[in-house]
Amino acid sequence: MTVFETGDLAAASYLSNFLGLAVAAVLLLLGSTWVDKSLRIPVTLCALALLAAAAASFEGRLALAASGKIPVLYHYAGWIISLPLLVLALWFLAGRAGQQSVGLFWRLVIVSVLMVFARYLGEAGYMHATLAFLIGLVFWLYILGELYFGRMDEAVRLSTDELLRRGYFWLRLIVTVGWAIYPLGNFITSFGGYQDDGALSIAYNVADLLNIAIFGAALLATAILSGADGKNA
Amino acid sequence: MTVFETGDLAAASYLSNFLGLAVAAVLLLLGSTWVDKSLRIPVTLCALALLAAAAASFEGRLALAASGKIPVLYHYAGWIISLPLLVLALWFLAGRAGQQSVGLFWRLVIVSVLMVFARYLGEAGYMHATLAFLIGLVFWLYILGELYFGRMDEAVRLSTDELLRRGYFWLRLIVTVGWAIYPLGNFITSFGGYQDDGALSIAYNVADLLNIAIFGAALLATAILSGADGKNA
Amino acid sequence: MTVFETGDLAAASYLSNFLGLAVAAVLLLLGSTWVDKSLRIPVTLCALALLAAAAASFEGRLALAASGKIPVLYHYAGWIISLPLLVLALWFLAGRAGQQSVGLFWRLVIVSVLMVFARYLGEAGYMHATLAFLIGLVFWLYILGELYFGRMDEAVRLSTDELLRRGYFWLRLIVTVGWAIYPLGNFITSFGGYQDDGALSIAYNVADLLNIAIFGAALLATAILSGADGKNA
Amino acid sequence: MTVFETGDLAAASYLSNFLGLAVAAVLLLLGSTWVDKSLRIPVTLCALALLAAAAASFEGRLALAASGKIPVLYHYAGWIISLPLLVLALWFLAGRAGQQSVGLFWRLVIVSVLMVFARYLGEAGYMHATLAFLIGLVFWLYILGELYFGRMDEAVRLSTDELLRRGYFWLRLIVTVGWAIYPLGNFITSFGGYQDDGALSIAYNVADLLNIAIFGAALLATAILSGADGKNA
Amino acid sequence: MTVFETGDLAAASYLSNFLGLAVAAVLLLLGSTWVDKSLRIPVTLCALALLAAAAASFEGRLALAASGKIPVLYHYAGWIISLPLLVLALWFLAGRAGQQSVGLFWRLVIVSVLMVFARYLGEAGYMHATLAFLIGLVFWLYILGELYFGRMDEAVRLSTDELLRRGYFWLRLIVTVGWAIYPLGNFITSFGGYQDDGALSIAYNVADLLNIAIFGAALLATAILSGADGKNA
Repeated sequence: MTVFETGDLAAASYLSNFLGLAVAAVLLLLGSTWVDKSLRIPVTLCALALLAAAAASFEGRLALAASGKIPVLYHYAGWIISLPLLVLALWFLAGRAGQQSVGLFWRLVIVSVLMVFARYLGEAGYMHATLAFLIGLVFWLYILGELYFGRMDEAVRLSTDELLRRGYFWLRLIVTVGWAIYPLGNFITSFGGYQDDGALSIAYNVADLLNIAIFGAALLATAILSGADGKNA
Repeated sequence: MTVFETGDLAAASYLSNFLGLAVAAVLLLLGSTWVDKSLRIPVTLCALALLAAAAASFEGRLALAASGKIPVLYHYAGWIISLPLLVLALWFLAGRAGQQSVGLFWRLVIVSVLMVFARYLGEAGYMHATLAFLIGLVFWLYILGELYFGRMDEAVRLSTDELLRRGYFWLRLIVTVGWAIYPLGNFITSFGGYQDDGALSIAYNVADLLNIAIFGAALLATAILSGADGKNA
Repeated sequence: MTVFETGDLAAASYLSNFLGLAVAAVLLLLGSTWVDKSLRIPVTLCALALLAAAAASFEGRLALAASGKIPVLYHYAGWIISLPLLVLALWFLAGRAGQQSVGLFWRLVIVSVLMVFARYLGEAGYMHATLAFLIGLVFWLYILGELYFGRMDEAVRLSTDELLRRGYFWLRLIVTVGWAIYPLGNFITSFGGYQDDGALSIAYNVADLLNIAIFGAALLATAILSGADGKNA
Repeated sequence: MTVFETGDLAAASYLSNFLGLAVAAVLLLLGSTWVDKSLRIPVTLCALALLAAAAASFEGRLALAASGKIPVLYHYAGWIISLPLLVLALWFLAGRAGQQSVGLFWRLVIVSVLMVFARYLGEAGYMHATLAFLIGLVFWLYILGELYFGRMDEAVRLSTDELLRRGYFWLRLIVTVGWAIYPLGNFITSFGGYQDDGALSIAYNVADLLNIAIFGAALLATAILSGADGKNA
Repeated sequence: MTVFETGDLAAASYLSNFLGLAVAAVLLLLGSTWVDKSLRIPVTLCALALLAAAAASFEGRLALAASGKIPVLYHYAGWIISLPLLVLALWFLAGRAGQQSVGLFWRLVIVSVLMVFARYLGEAGYMHATLAFLIGLVFWLYILGELYFGRMDEAVRLSTDELLRRGYFWLRLIVTVGWAIYPLGNFITSFGGYQDDGALSIAYNVADLLNIAIFGAALLATAILSGADGKNA
């Protein structure tokens, strides 16, 4: 095993990222027993996304210790599980404001899986890089479109639950702003001819902490507060 | 430890497969505490099948890191535990619609264990490949026969629980369509003289995600929805 | 790490044995929260026996990967924890039919620990092989005597709980028939001059699945069914 | 793997530190189910801090076994997760005495993360050592200022809950006295030209046991006692 | 990894010791949810002692596999966490019979930590062996004094709870008789010039099973039986 020296920022970001995702996963697993029954499922899905991200981060750290670098494969293996789960958590959260259609559920699953998969195929050279980048971008924009202009937004907007509306606003903001790192990173490695010397891994690690751990904590806070004046506990 | 490069699709499929099965296992373990008491057992059996499949996938990944390939031994070691558990989960699910016979329970256990075992013996060269393939095929058809024309189907068909009927329909479909990959893979390695260069492993990984993780999620959804208008929660 | 090839039956039996014992342990741990309060302890003891057996099996598998063989040490290290726990589970199960004496409890603990320990000393060459074999045999027969003709049998026989009687019958049968593999294996290595080339390990693995995993599942089934018409749930 | 000899005090402190943090984490996770609902969150946050610290300690131990020394990277990776969680636990604890502002929450998160991060940048040579030391010091003093003179202190001081007041007093004392080791260690390595030969690691390990494990136990005790005469259990 | 041969008694004792402590830890963690609320804390503390002892035993086993011997460091790292927890468990158990003083609590913590620490310093050569031995002995006698003639004994003796009195009697006996192995082992290595060739490790392993696992099981039995006719369950 390679020992990480103090100056190794990439290793530091991996260790902290792993610890942060792991404790957030434990928090949300515990939290899923605290919230209102109707909010148990979105909280659990976030917990699962955190577990998958933490495990992928741990795998990446092993690769870092073995070879001094982390192929993006390890990031994508985590994202293909965790990002769709986060999108579904929003669908279930919106479902508290009003029943959402099952068709939308399946569209979101498929689109978010394909978004990650297309980017991976591009990075791995199995698909033309520009095409893969555009597919990933379009699928991300589709998800944003559903979140801003679709039935989910409508149901939440009409909801009388002030805390649910505010939570949805912030969670959607994370998906909009925070997730921009993924196509951006995809872009600069595919077109900028950028060779990752650690900086991109650090950016991904910080972004994952925001996009998955803070997202999960925000969703849990929404669920606890929204459930407090809800039907049962 | 070998570090998996970004272009290594087989490794990517193993990592994602492991993460997907593991988080699905956690979901079903948690879910077993959410559902109606009479549905706790099928959900738990699916969770156990997922745990076994995830552990076998993890073992396979270690072998992949150590040697660059994964002998089918690792797949069969998982299937011999997980597939019978899934079949039993269907028996217990049908038991909600009407008491199923204990004789059927034992026939399903024995047939599904022997189905996997015969295929393994064929692949490992302990039994004539054609014979093993045919035994595996016949046992799979027997299970399908029970699911389509046996007492389980009858009980579910006569049930007044619309959601249970629909869930049973989809779960049976997975056993019919999704499980076809196992005799198919068995066939092409035994008779097609096919040497696995990763493609079969990828196919098995994708199939396992569908046949075990999606199967489990579908069964949990059936259990939650069916239990919601059921006796207790 | 050695990668196990597909034809390696001993490795396949170890992997399946580990997976089977591990998922059965999870099942019984969960099950201990489902059953009647008075049956929680026997179910938990079985779960602990399964945990110990699974951990010992995992250790054995590591040894197999490192050296290609598994000294019986690994089997005995597991049995010395798991077999006494199974015997005690029967004592607590019989306690549901009628209070059992504490003296019997301690006799069963000591006799079952010594049964495994004597056999181990014989196999390891610290004690004369014939003597060790006979001690192990006598102690096993003592346990069978208590199960067939002792106070436990009496209490169960007089119980009005049909399901408890039936469960006790099957569990006792496993202790009678299934456990015969242990003195048998002990005998053929000690006297037959048999050098284990894997066949004995496979036999032990299959036997452990029957004697510990199926035993546990049978005890859980007894506890769930017997508790269903019992005092509380 | 290197085996630690009996005279290796640094290794002994790492092993004990890991065991102590791990069992304290388990205690607080269990404890979070024992306390009053309004105190569940601070107890859980402490448990997460303990988990992160235990995991970082375990990583450090692996590095020690591999190379005979532990770069401070491993300490900082743990602290950047655990120290902010402890500060937030105090915010939630004070919230029991009276609603605390959300602005303060975010200030505490950001200040405590930056406190650890600045120190790390200084130690790793990415920032001028004096500047990093001073930033870390100022941020620590800011946290102490909030604890002694801010709204949190005010709310606790006015609380009628004698046990909460006493618990807050002791917890604040740990943050004042115990946390002094971190700037001190930072100071002597940055300015004293001190090369860590194990003594600093031992000091950090003992300090972590006090600052995180004893802190957690004290907070749990406060929560149990304060909750005992509280609203519900 | 070294594979342990069948004749390796020290390895066999380590494996069994680890399995025994681990399953006992699981038993007490589960048991802490079964017992009366006022007995939850002593049971949990025993569970934590078992966890720490099991983890230390596991670490020792790794050292054994790597180098063929186990420095006593590994034993002491476990004892410094587990023995104080067992003493505190007795303090909390006695607290059921009558409120115990907080001063005694802290004296017991400090004395039991120093007892182990002094012995370790003696064994590691940091302190004069005779002095360390005597300090360890005096601190052990102090604990026995508190157990036999102090306020804890008084409270238990005056208790009307017959089962609590009997449990306290047996637990105290284990601390008296079973713990004698620790100063004894300390004595013969320090003064007898004894070089551990495995026999002392085996003695420590057997003693730990008695002093920690059986102690824990006895305390759980006391808590279950005493709680059965207690206030709530």
